[in-house]
Parts: sequence; structure tokens; C-alpha cells
Amino acid sequence: MIRVAIDAMGGDNAPEEIVKGAVAALADQPEVQILLTGRPEAVEPILAGLSYDKDRLTVVPASEVIETAEPPVAAIRTKKDSSMTVGLNLVKEGKADCFISSGSTGALLVGAQLLVGRIPGVRRPPLAPVLPTTSGPSLLIDCGANVDARPEHLVQFARMGAAYMEGVVGIKNPTVGLMNIGAEEDKGNALVKETMPLLKACEDINFIGSVEARDIPFGAADVVVCEAFAGNVALKMYEGTAKALLSQIKAALMSSVRGKIGGLLIKPSLKGLMKTFDAAEYGGAPMLGLNGLVVKTHGSAKAGEIRTAVSQCVRFREQHMDEKIKEMMAKK
Amino acid sequence: MIRVAIDAMGGDNAPEEIVKGAVAALADQPEVQILLTGRPEAVEPILAGLSYDKDRLTVVPASEVIETAEPPVAAIRTKKDSSMTVGLNLVKEGKADCFISSGSTGALLVGAQLLVGRIPGVRRPPLAPVLPTTSGPSLLIDCGANVDARPEHLVQFARMGAAYMEGVVGIKNPTVGLMNIGAEEDKGNALVKETMPLLKACEDINFIGSVEARDIPFGAADVVVCEAFAGNVALKMYEGTAKALLSQIKAALMSSVRGKIGGLLIKPSLKGLMKTFDAAEYGGAPMLGLNGLVVKTHGSAKAGEIRTAVSQCVRFREQHMDEKIKEMMAKK
Repeated sequence: MIRVAIDAMGGDNAPEEIVKGAVAALADQPEVQILLTGRPEAVEPILAGLSYDKDRLTVVPASEVIETAEPPVAAIRTKKDSSMTVGLNLVKEGKADCFISSGSTGALLVGAQLLVGRIPGVRRPPLAPVLPTTSGPSLLIDCGANVDARPEHLVQFARMGAAYMEGVVGIKNPTVGLMNIGAEEDKGNALVKETMPLLKACEDINFIGSVEARDIPFGAADVVVCEAFAGNVALKMYEGTAKALLSQIKAALMSSVRGKIGGLLIKPSLKGLMKTFDAAEYGGAPMLGLNGLVVKTHGSAKAGEIRTAVSQCVRFREQHMDEKIKEMMAKK
Repeated sequence: MIRVAIDAMGGDNAPEEIVKGAVAALADQPEVQILLTGRPEAVEPILAGLSYDKDRLTVVPASEVIETAEPPVAAIRTKKDSSMTVGLNLVKEGKADCFISSGSTGALLVGAQLLVGRIPGVRRPPLAPVLPTTSGPSLLIDCGANVDARPEHLVQFARMGAAYMEGVVGIKNPTVGLMNIGAEEDKGNALVKETMPLLKACEDINFIGSVEARDIPFGAADVVVCEAFAGNVALKMYEGTAKALLSQIKAALMSSVRGKIGGLLIKPSLKGLMKTFDAAEYGGAPMLGLNGLVVKTHGSAKAGEIRTAVSQCVRFREQHMDEKIKEMMAKK
């Protein structure tokens, strides 16, 4: 049995979509036991309307909710009975293998480090969302956990990221690139210049050198290593540009009758495309290097994303990713 | 008369598109004198086929061309008779007011600093492209000139950027934001945290605090201040995502008859949209804080972009931007 704790109260569509996603995941995954953390009075009425295997789903009461706007450290410290804190503690206490939350990213990052703890040897656990690209998924590691990271941290990100893409996403011998602002040897900031030779010397990864941000949406590397500030800028710019462009296309089409008719005709073609570019198709962003898996799903996550995130947790456990990362970190 | 030197040999479409753009600009701008730097044997045959005011266009011979792949410093130092070096020297010697090039960004950045030189008080001249957003142009400063910049450099970028947006782009009292990875006060890396209070204390700009990358394509601020590595990542991600998405939309439409017909119908609507999102509509990226204006146009620039860049130079001079920046830097 793989025990997955899920924050029933986190995100814009909680608890309804989260609960529905958890129930859908139960049907998919016969080996999964789900622990829903949150207010029973909010969660149970939704469960009452759904049919599922009651032996494999438990509601773990948590009376509080951490809001997105709350300062992360204070929220984790003071709201000890929040759905997020309770879920993280389930992993800490060995009562759950994984924890999924669509709640505050900041609080989750802080809480995961404080409560779940790091695998020995891991300096800084990175947050690593999978980006959909024109040629498949690409892991952007780190995207927000460790600003001002040092070269040795980036090397750990590269190794953990490659292990994750191979084990969980199923990409054989994944290519690893270092995010840079040019392809030439002498390009980059001090961090990149110091990290480059360390990655080149890394024998357990398939390092391909610099990757420019403009090539990331085309799948320039299976794993893109970066410091969290630049990584977060890249991720948010990716999401923002896609959103702005699509909203403008929609507005342009609605501005004329001809556009409207054309829009109706192209709808089916675009639907498939949107699916390719939908980050939710790949589940949430794993936080790697912890004593257990913590997955951050989008704040706007719906049932489908929670369902995928559960299968991501299953694959993580089936592939013994914890042990693989532990061995890897012990090696060097 | 405003004397604009143009690198006739730089970029993917040189010399033909560059020369055509220069000639088109002459017709637009009665006050402009153009100096085309490059190989006369390459430039003159193109000019021979065009009609223009011969008194206002001169070819300044330069026998060499700096290629994109060349290491910037070495290229500027050794190719003393390149179209780029000759053009930069025209500004240095006071024979031209501005220089426009679509050639190697790295070489132009190095050459501009080495040859043209900085306005007294300017620590690091930033490169500042204008990004098209859903609510108008936004200046991203710095996008590649000064990696690992310090807080005091970012403050200068903010002030110069605001002056440029007001004077050249014509935005009254432009808003200035600091690129960050969250809106909360305590977010950011060390550089952002140190820069934030300095910008808040800056009385000559309209500072609005943190701006997240996801909001930049929606025009979150008229001027977005950032260190060059993150700025370059943001810019390239913006360009790459738009390109990837549009290529995928095109492919999706071509994959079915229905999509093809719909595609034909929506073409006019999309054309207007593409114009809104075309960075070339705003000319090139100015490099600010130099003794004269240096403008970097896209490597793929066509005649239209060169023509717009010339009008950008005209406005820069008409608005006495050099003097404004000089006064501003002297003040603090």
C-alpha cells in the first residue's frame, strides 16, 4: 500500500475539486490509501455524494487553513492544526509516504523543510515543476525553493532531477542542461561559470552544457538546472506569456464575425494543443531530497491534476526514488 | 540634423534589409543624416536600385564583419575595421549621434562600453528592450549587459529606464517595478531585498514595488528593473514561449481540413494581434547611459525594424535624453 496524504483545503478549488480528484485516484490506483487532511464538516458532505472504496480513504481532521497571503514561516509555526501542517506531519511521522497540496507554495516549501526534513547529504531540496514543451516534458529545477544557491547545490539539483525524470517520468538517460544567457563558454553570471565545470565533471548525468531560455519551450533539455530566482522567473514568464497570448487570440477572434466562425472551426484542433501545453497533465511539482515526497499542485488545480499527482506519487514509490536519491547523495 | 550611423553588415538579413530600412527612414525623417558602415561593394549595388536623397546618406567603408559566434572582446579588439567598430567609433568621435546594429549583441555591448564610453556617474550601461504587452509597451532593464549587478546599479537602471519611457516612448510618469518572485515584502533574493528600500527611497521615480514575471506580459509596470541574467531569461522565455505556442497552433490548424478552413478565416484577426506582439514595432533595445545612443535591433531585423529604430534615435535626440540622463546622474 502507498499512503498518500492530500491537503483537502488548499487551493482555489478546495475542497470540492481536491476531494473529487482524490476519489478518482482511488479508482485508478488499487494500491493507494488516501488520507485527506482538512475540516471534516467541509470534506465529508462532498464525500457523501461520491461512491468510492471507503476502506482506502480516511479524513484526518485539521481545523485550520493556511491562506496564500500569509507569511510562510509564521503560518507553519502558528497554525499547527492546519490541513497543510497536519499533512506534512503525517509524512514526518511515517504515517504517509507522500503529501500533495495546492495551497501556499511558500508555506509548503518552508513546512516541508522544517517538518518533513531532508535526506542526509541533501543541502537544499529543490522544487521542480515539469514544463510541457513542443517535444515532451522538461523538468525545471529549482523553481523557487532556494534563491542564491551555490554551485554545489546546483550539482545536486542536476543529479536528483535526472533521477526523477528517468524514474518517474520515464525518460531514459535524460539530457541535463544548465540555464544560461548564451551558448558560448564564457557566458553567464558567476554562479553559472562556477557550476559549469562541476556539471561537466559529473559522471552520473548526461550533461549537454548551456541551455538558453528561448529554447526551453522547445524542449532543449529533459532537465534544466537553475538557481531558484531565475528558475521562478522562467516558469512564471512561461505561464504568463502563454496566458497573455491565448487571451489576446481569443479577444481577436471574438472581435469579428469571420473570426468567430473561424474560432468555432479551429476549436477541436486547439483543444488537443491545449492538452499538450497543460502543465496539469504531468501532475504537480515535486520537492526533491526530502524524507518522503512532497508535491505542489497548482493553486488552480482541479480534480484531474490531483488525480495525476497521486499517480506521480505511486510511481515515485514504485521506483524507490527515495532510496535512489539516498544512495546517490551518499556516493558523493 | 541628427546623424544616425547604421551597421549595414550586421544581422541575418544584412545588408539588403538594413539598407532598405535606412532608405525608408530617410523618407520618414527629414532631419536625419544616415551613415551606413560596411563594405561598399556589398552596400552600393543595393543603394543603386533605390531612390533616395543622396545628400543625406553616406557609405562609410568598413572592410570586416563581426560574426555572431565570435568571442565579443576579441572581436572588438582585433576587427578594428569591422562595420560595428567603425560605427561605434563614429559615435565616439562625435561624427554620429547614434549607432544602430543588428549584429552580435555581445560584441555590441562590449564595443559600446569600450569605444563609446559611459556618461560620468553611470556605473553600468544597461540594455533595455521594449516588450510588447497586452496593455502597451514595457521596458525590461537590464536584459543582458550587466550580470551580477549590485543594488546601486539597479537604482540607476530604474531612473534611466523611467526617463527613457517618459521621453522616448511617451508614457507620462511611468510606473517602475522590481522583478521579483512573489509580491510579499520578504520575498526575493539578496539583491532584490537590498534594492527594494533603495528604490522606495528614490523620489524621482514612480516605484510600485515587486512585479512577478507572470504579470509582465500583461503590462504590470511600464519599467521592469532586473539584474541582467534574470532579465535575459525573462526576455528569452517570453520570445521562446510565444514562438513555440504559435508554431504549435499553426501545426494544429494544418492537421485537419476543418482547422485549415478555420485558420484562413481567423488570419486577418490574428494579423492585427501579431502586430501588437511584435517587438520590432518598438524599434530596437537602447543601451542607456552612454555618450551617445547605441541601439541593438534583432538579429532577424528587417527593413521595418531599422526604420523604427531610426525614429527612436530621432526622438531620443529631440528629447535631449543624453542631457537628461547626464543631469540625473549628476544629481545623485
